[in-house]
Amino acid sequence: MTPEQRIACLDIRLPDLLNPVGLYIHGKCTGNLLYLSGKGTVSIVGKVGKDITVTQARQAAREVGLYLLAAVRHEVGSLDRVTQVVKVNGYINATPDFAEHPAVIDGCSELLIEVFGEAGKHVRTSVGVSSLPGNMPVEIEAVVELKSSQSQLNNRLN
Amino acid sequence: MTPEQRIACLDIRLPDLLNPVGLYIHGKCTGNLLYLSGKGTVSIVGKVGKDITVTQARQAAREVGLYLLAAVRHEVGSLDRVTQVVKVNGYINATPDFAEHPAVIDGCSELLIEVFGEAGKHVRTSVGVSSLPGNMPVEIEAVVELKSSQSQLNNRLN
Amino acid sequence: MTPEQRIACLDIRLPDLLNPVGLYIHGKCTGNLLYLSGKGTVSIVGKVGKDITVTQARQAAREVGLYLLAAVRHEVGSLDRVTQVVKVNGYINATPDFAEHPAVIDGCSELLIEVFGEAGKHVRTSVGVSSLPGNMPVEIEAVVELKSSQSQLNNRLN
Repeated sequence: MTPEQRIACLDIRLPDLLNPVGLYIHGKCTGNLLYLSGKGTVSIVGKVGKDITVTQARQAAREVGLYLLAAVRHEVGSLDRVTQVVKVNGYINATPDFAEHPAVIDGCSELLIEVFGEAGKHVRTSVGVSSLPGNMPVEIEAVVELKSSQSQLNNRLN
Repeated sequence: MTPEQRIACLDIRLPDLLNPVGLYIHGKCTGNLLYLSGKGTVSIVGKVGKDITVTQARQAAREVGLYLLAAVRHEVGSLDRVTQVVKVNGYINATPDFAEHPAVIDGCSELLIEVFGEAGKHVRTSVGVSSLPGNMPVEIEAVVELKSSQSQLNNRLN
Repeated sequence: MTPEQRIACLDIRLPDLLNPVGLYIHGKCTGNLLYLSGKGTVSIVGKVGKDITVTQARQAAREVGLYLLAAVRHEVGSLDRVTQVVKVNGYINATPDFAEHPAVIDGCSELLIEVFGEAGKHVRTSVGVSSLPGNMPVEIEAVVELKSSQSQLNNRLN
């Protein structure tokens, strides 16, 4: 099953992308890599460990993952263009004593693995930051690898 | 107009690079990507939201952008070697209740778009950190794409 | 001397990798780049500037460097496959008034230069975060360049 077939099958609906709140764009390709801007969600705001529980933050991280997928589809037309998820960086707006970062960002990572399977497994860094834009609980950026350039290159070489 | 012509035209002067204050270098190329170390400015120090206003921090972010451009020129000789700005990560030394990160890092992004035009538009992540080296207000790293390898490769392929 | 010969010669022992504490993997290759997940060490825990001194944190950063090297060897079999270290991002779990970040992350950078020599010099970003997983003092991620794809590509082109 392709990633697009999989999200249809799992009834995962991708949200409409929110306009960037600054002078940046959703995604940029270089070679066969697609870099994605740090995304957040405004469905819930506040600091993890004070205003927001780990469970709520993990749900927020999953929502951010949906926005990342929406950004991929917006930039390259289809999730089926993704050959693998390379990297995820998760920033959690948390209290200084917070220590359960992996459990939060797992909400996003789990979604990516649901959609892309083995190819969705990625390297990751999770840290706790002292503040985020608009007091969002979680911000996540990603790098994914695309089929295009690589296969174009292979075609030219073969 | 090329980027170098544009900064001459706009009378944008690039500062002298400061020596790295640690065991790292300004820039490193891999393939046709140039990775740049996180840069800061010492023209103003302190925490945004306490010692420093958003307007001052945005100006600091623009100055950091000038250092990033100086690093590009230092590494590859000319800004005209840049085909596009790929990615910017902005770290703001801010109070825990700070929420206007995009407005700050826009100071850097705006400069990059002035200099590189459409190719200067980039993906971005902006977060608030609890401290920065030397109590700088802003630290920004970037990845830019260069002409060289890609066109060398194309030359070899054509 | 190759990197593997050098660590043997310097009697640097790489630790066993700890299992990821979340839904992520140690390393992922795209093209000739190997991205490594943010690694930490649990030999010492706490906040730098309060529970932990700069000297202790620098030692912790060196230990994290050993885990990064162990991850490289685990992923590609040998450190000799590395052509250069591209990038290091260091996150320090520090008090809001901490300002000596470069001195801490130098512990990791120094190790990489010991092992890889000139090719070990890298770009770097060091920031102070308000919390880290498990209250670790330091978390460091890296990108290294590998021999493989590039030389395979060159072979196909020549």
